[in-house]
Amino acid sequence: MGFNYLDLNKDLTRDQIQLKMSVREFAQKVLRPAARELDELSNPEDVVKKGSLFWDGMRKMRELDYHTAHLPEQIGGMGLSPIELHILFEEIAAASAGFAIALGVDMFPALLAAMTQQPELIEKFTVPYVRDREMKMLGCWAITEPAHGSDMLMPGTPYFEDPKIHGEVLAELQGDEWVISGQKSAWVSDGPVATHAAVYLTIFKGKGMMGKGMTGGGIAIVPLDLPGVSKGKALSKIGQRELPQGEIYFDNVRIPQNYMIAGPEIYTDMLEMTLAMCNGLMGAIFTGVARSAFEEALLYSKGRVQGGVPICQHQLVQDKLFKMFMKVEAARALSRSALNYNLSTQPPSVQYSIAAKVFCTRSAFEIASEAIQIFGGNGLSREYPVEKIFRDARASMIEDGANEVLGLTAAHNLLKKYR
Amino acid sequence: MGFNYLDLNKDLTRDQIQLKMSVREFAQKVLRPAARELDELSNPEDVVKKGSLFWDGMRKMRELDYHTAHLPEQIGGMGLSPIELHILFEEIAAASAGFAIALGVDMFPALLAAMTQQPELIEKFTVPYVRDREMKMLGCWAITEPAHGSDMLMPGTPYFEDPKIHGEVLAELQGDEWVISGQKSAWVSDGPVATHAAVYLTIFKGKGMMGKGMTGGGIAIVPLDLPGVSKGKALSKIGQRELPQGEIYFDNVRIPQNYMIAGPEIYTDMLEMTLAMCNGLMGAIFTGVARSAFEEALLYSKGRVQGGVPICQHQLVQDKLFKMFMKVEAARALSRSALNYNLSTQPPSVQYSIAAKVFCTRSAFEIASEAIQIFGGNGLSREYPVEKIFRDARASMIEDGANEVLGLTAAHNLLKKYR
Amino acid sequence: MGFNYLDLNKDLTRDQIQLKMSVREFAQKVLRPAARELDELSNPEDVVKKGSLFWDGMRKMRELDYHTAHLPEQIGGMGLSPIELHILFEEIAAASAGFAIALGVDMFPALLAAMTQQPELIEKFTVPYVRDREMKMLGCWAITEPAHGSDMLMPGTPYFEDPKIHGEVLAELQGDEWVISGQKSAWVSDGPVATHAAVYLTIFKGKGMMGKGMTGGGIAIVPLDLPGVSKGKALSKIGQRELPQGEIYFDNVRIPQNYMIAGPEIYTDMLEMTLAMCNGLMGAIFTGVARSAFEEALLYSKGRVQGGVPICQHQLVQDKLFKMFMKVEAARALSRSALNYNLSTQPPSVQYSIAAKVFCTRSAFEIASEAIQIFGGNGLSREYPVEKIFRDARASMIEDGANEVLGLTAAHNLLKKYR
Amino acid sequence: MGFNYLDLNKDLTRDQIQLKMSVREFAQKVLRPAARELDELSNPEDVVKKGSLFWDGMRKMRELDYHTAHLPEQIGGMGLSPIELHILFEEIAAASAGFAIALGVDMFPALLAAMTQQPELIEKFTVPYVRDREMKMLGCWAITEPAHGSDMLMPGTPYFEDPKIHGEVLAELQGDEWVISGQKSAWVSDGPVATHAAVYLTIFKGKGMMGKGMTGGGIAIVPLDLPGVSKGKALSKIGQRELPQGEIYFDNVRIPQNYMIAGPEIYTDMLEMTLAMCNGLMGAIFTGVARSAFEEALLYSKGRVQGGVPICQHQLVQDKLFKMFMKVEAARALSRSALNYNLSTQPPSVQYSIAAKVFCTRSAFEIASEAIQIFGGNGLSREYPVEKIFRDARASMIEDGANEVLGLTAAHNLLKKYR
Repeated sequence: MGFNYLDLNKDLTRDQIQLKMSVREFAQKVLRPAARELDELSNPEDVVKKGSLFWDGMRKMRELDYHTAHLPEQIGGMGLSPIELHILFEEIAAASAGFAIALGVDMFPALLAAMTQQPELIEKFTVPYVRDREMKMLGCWAITEPAHGSDMLMPGTPYFEDPKIHGEVLAELQGDEWVISGQKSAWVSDGPVATHAAVYLTIFKGKGMMGKGMTGGGIAIVPLDLPGVSKGKALSKIGQRELPQGEIYFDNVRIPQNYMIAGPEIYTDMLEMTLAMCNGLMGAIFTGVARSAFEEALLYSKGRVQGGVPICQHQLVQDKLFKMFMKVEAARALSRSALNYNLSTQPPSVQYSIAAKVFCTRSAFEIASEAIQIFGGNGLSREYPVEKIFRDARASMIEDGANEVLGLTAAHNLLKKYR
Repeated sequence: MGFNYLDLNKDLTRDQIQLKMSVREFAQKVLRPAARELDELSNPEDVVKKGSLFWDGMRKMRELDYHTAHLPEQIGGMGLSPIELHILFEEIAAASAGFAIALGVDMFPALLAAMTQQPELIEKFTVPYVRDREMKMLGCWAITEPAHGSDMLMPGTPYFEDPKIHGEVLAELQGDEWVISGQKSAWVSDGPVATHAAVYLTIFKGKGMMGKGMTGGGIAIVPLDLPGVSKGKALSKIGQRELPQGEIYFDNVRIPQNYMIAGPEIYTDMLEMTLAMCNGLMGAIFTGVARSAFEEALLYSKGRVQGGVPICQHQLVQDKLFKMFMKVEAARALSRSALNYNLSTQPPSVQYSIAAKVFCTRSAFEIASEAIQIFGGNGLSREYPVEKIFRDARASMIEDGANEVLGLTAAHNLLKKYR
Repeated sequence: MGFNYLDLNKDLTRDQIQLKMSVREFAQKVLRPAARELDELSNPEDVVKKGSLFWDGMRKMRELDYHTAHLPEQIGGMGLSPIELHILFEEIAAASAGFAIALGVDMFPALLAAMTQQPELIEKFTVPYVRDREMKMLGCWAITEPAHGSDMLMPGTPYFEDPKIHGEVLAELQGDEWVISGQKSAWVSDGPVATHAAVYLTIFKGKGMMGKGMTGGGIAIVPLDLPGVSKGKALSKIGQRELPQGEIYFDNVRIPQNYMIAGPEIYTDMLEMTLAMCNGLMGAIFTGVARSAFEEALLYSKGRVQGGVPICQHQLVQDKLFKMFMKVEAARALSRSALNYNLSTQPPSVQYSIAAKVFCTRSAFEIASEAIQIFGGNGLSREYPVEKIFRDARASMIEDGANEVLGLTAAHNLLKKYR
Repeated sequence: MGFNYLDLNKDLTRDQIQLKMSVREFAQKVLRPAARELDELSNPEDVVKKGSLFWDGMRKMRELDYHTAHLPEQIGGMGLSPIELHILFEEIAAASAGFAIALGVDMFPALLAAMTQQPELIEKFTVPYVRDREMKMLGCWAITEPAHGSDMLMPGTPYFEDPKIHGEVLAELQGDEWVISGQKSAWVSDGPVATHAAVYLTIFKGKGMMGKGMTGGGIAIVPLDLPGVSKGKALSKIGQRELPQGEIYFDNVRIPQNYMIAGPEIYTDMLEMTLAMCNGLMGAIFTGVARSAFEEALLYSKGRVQGGVPICQHQLVQDKLFKMFMKVEAARALSRSALNYNLSTQPPSVQYSIAAKVFCTRSAFEIASEAIQIFGGNGLSREYPVEKIFRDARASMIEDGANEVLGLTAAHNLLKKYR
């Protein structure tokens, strides 16, 4: 792409601009064509298969250390600042939303282990991950369940404390081990390919003792090669088909006590922090998706002739291009601010990240749909890039929490904090 | 479907209600599952293949005489009234937008032949079509070209008279034959499977003599087994994948003089009439698509539990359901009025049909997108019906004319007529 | 206005077209300038004042019998069909939303009395109203209360049956009289000028005996010259300033037993019927408002020059004009169907009328806002007509029920009826 | 207001937070009630009248030095940074859009004079303005004309260079004086009260010599007490009624040659810079308007009870509140970035400021309309604050350039710069 489109941010350093450029080049050259090819595969199991372009793309990101982006330098991570994280994820996602999300959840177990500051866990889950160049370790975040999607993502609301509602993946302490049973939904990103999972589950303390609804949760790091773990088939879905998603089943899976890194006393806070981080990154990712749709449309509008002139000379096309541009810039400005705020403030304000996620995913969807409209018939054809971007963007308004549900969660926070 | 959802129209006759019921039953039982299966095929050539469910569905409609819906009773057609046509297409499309469109364009050559009132053409193109039960004849409408999409669909605007713009499929009178050369775009519905085409082309009168822009057109009925006709590969596209679409190439194809049923003197009027009819039917079709998405969402919302209750008890879901319902009813009311007006008024007012087309396709898209949102994660999965409806609906805002371009055409009409 | 803009409805009779023309002429000549002048008055009490243009406009409608539009011919009414009612109200509202609403509620007491089929009530409230040419009788509909807006308008929902919620205007049977006390909100249309009110109130049967929430209501016809009735100041509000609205206070007001025309056993049904009728008429009224904004904009766009040409030649303006046109036609088609259905079906389906009300008011608002945009700076000036239309339209999304609340009411109906 | 609502920006300094707090306190206490009272005046001439609350508010801002916000410290100005300017204007506008705009244009002549770096002009127009505490000097920006609104605001587009289009206020060099004649539109903010104007006009070089369309412009600083200057009546308009606007007429007004601070050679660049600054400030201003509507609605939703609970407990209200919040944050993030970029980059990128202006004004309008909806009937009443905010916001989508027209201007820039 010959775009000289940079960034409204006056305050980026030279290093940050350099980061932007190098990620862009890699992502456009390697990830974008890989994602388009993976998207064409009608059977999602072919994405999961060893040797697929999915594995190739992920391994190449390992070589560039991107998988350590969010990990501190003292244990070998890139230690990117919030703004740099935003840059990284925007640029990867401008090439492929699926790879960006695959990378985002990949980091989960290693990052959570690092946050515990327990040397044993760091040694076991973080250090080897940081050093991994051959895809020996691949993480995932397992939270939603077949019967609990939104239910899982509403910390701080009355629903979350409703004693009638609790999760299906239960962990019970038996001696010095936790025993885990139950099923996570088909929406676990990287689920079919992961070696380790950060499992957000329900702590079982005996029948009738789970009275706190979803607040009675816990977080466990679970190696997925343990006895009792099995996986469902990779899901066939509308978009982000380069990203493998699928169920994980737990049947009396036993883990050491210290793998349970959070119990009910901090679960709600941890979940809020998780949401604040993930939704913030979703903001960055779908800024990238939005931008790529805009850039495709701008380019196409200069070449396609109708009414005797390149269509970019028609007012209606100019109006669309401007609105796309405006939304891209608003998306980036908002999601950068939110990520910057929430990755450097304790406790975070989840409503900012939710605002970023909802705004950016909605914008990406609208922009991608307008890009199709500018491409006309070609926009509907699989030979052109925009219909994939559109399908990818559609999924984003549900993944990581349906936008409406996240909005309610944010509203509860707003109502508490603003007086 | 156990729906007792009928119709707001107070004035439907008993026969019309009966028609609605019988079409619905057939379409839901036969066409809907066929369309979903065809949608799964990754290679569109498999839809085109003899013996596919596409052929099966079309043949079954032949057996029910649906292909003659718009043809007068005196030559064996169903002779449906505008309201009845609306009912037929809404119900078919509620099961499959692709089959509805396949049927709509199928009729084209036979209908145009009938409109000429020339016995020879009727004998040749209409009567055998009416009697066809075995898919010996299948029509299509060939208008847009690789370099001319919107250009083709703006009668009555200055663009249409711009002498710098003319079509690529040229017909020249040589003796008592017309000789046709050029290419139609990949968007010819039924193109890959059709035996006959209604070709909207440009009349060539020698170099430098085509000074009228797109107004210098003509309409020919062309049997597609003639020497010089060839076809492109079926197009792979975002939605309506049960509908085969693809290029038709003409290389010095010769037809008798009387197959050219319209020349420049009436071309603009004929095109306006064509648009008025097609856009009116698109209104009916995407009312059906909109309704099916609404019904799926309503049903699902009664079964899916989140927050401890069926989600239909949440205000946010109720709000969505109401708005979907409102748009379905508005779509039907508008498109019925428009079709009724334009199929019984000479000349038609193309802006009414365009309003119906734009409103109904936009509504179908919005409703389908909201239906996905109500289905949550399941809405994105290919195992559930709504993501297909959504992809089908997306295509509609471009097919039969990009909505924005049609809007400009309508605006020119408005500005002429309203003082 | 030189508009030759008629109507998409193919099926209007010659008489109906004649009705349309004559109402339009009157409304544009008399009501429109009166409304604009009344809008300019900064003190709403000046609208209420005897001798104002409000009284003049209302009296002239009396002379044309419009106040009897909805009353049967056998008692001297115009006996208009649903379609004709729609025509009447669309045309009046195209000149002034406020006068249309003033007329709509004016009929209330006389109409309800007629519906009782009790000769005594008809003789007292209907016959003299029909004959009135001098504004001796003027009706209103008193329903909402300071603490109960939406609460009053949700028949069929759980809120309506919530025993914790009940109205503030209470009626208690004492001997053979009902004694009424309490206050109606400032939003009673025609309240400051009315001589009679249809009061939707709460039946009081002793403390602790009003356990049915809002379902325990009743409807009384109350002459407003009775002892104990008083009125608040006319409300100053954003739009529809030609329409007087204000509180009515009841302090031990005594009425004969038979003036209570409905008790709790039929209150919910009566309220549904009322909503079905009123919301249906709101559909007609705001179709008219929408149309008038569209017509103003179309006309202006032909005269105003920017960019060297009349702005109607710019694509962006054409796009707006088309969308306005589309919404006007959709609004009319939907609201006609809904009114036609609900005024001739027992029981009505309130969700159809709500769909019409919500769609038409929303469309009127959007169209009026776009009309301002087409007028540019002039659109913001009080010297031009569109800013008033815009303010009038804004109010409509709340009056007769906030659109969102009505939507919930409709959704509950949908969920009950569609399986 | 007891709001503890601060700011998402992690990077504000302590001084900046202090600035925010002090401006807020002043604006809420002084400007807000003044603006509401001025809004009630039915005759705009009463706003203009000496001794009105308009003069009082402006003078109090003088005392706080706000009028020098944008002027460098070395000549006595506050010398605020771009971020601080944003803070100042957001906070003033959260109390009154009209006062914020009055202040914004007030600075114009002094600022332009300062930019010339000519000591004589600075001495004459800047220094006394900086020192003014008694409203002896009040500036305005005179650009649009009755026949040229959008025409004036499209630098960089083909329209701007169309030789058929030129302005009506002409300046001709006669000897060592410029002679100015013509009329500026009724939309000159502060026009009726200003003592000095920055006039954007057309340079006249003899008949037939104005061949460059709007590019042939110039900028003059004109004292409005010169012979030949007269003014129209203050305009009555939908909103921002506390802001006086009105025509300025020039009839052979003579100014010294050096008051013409820009001629055709730099006019387009100067206009782009002006737009970049003004539109950027409009972004800040309507962020403030948006926020105030959001805060009003949030507060009201906690107190108003319907359905038996405070309405903030209803999902539909929470959904609205969240979306309002999201838009406020996006508006602020985008407009801060844009202002920061464009006030510190030469040449500025006008498309960023336009994006900020269009996004923030649109958001303010949408949020204000939703605030009305949350207030229900009270939202329409002049006794509550939101209907004024709504009217103020409506005007913003046209003032400083109709949003659509600005969008086209931005699109032309985009198309040039992005390849």
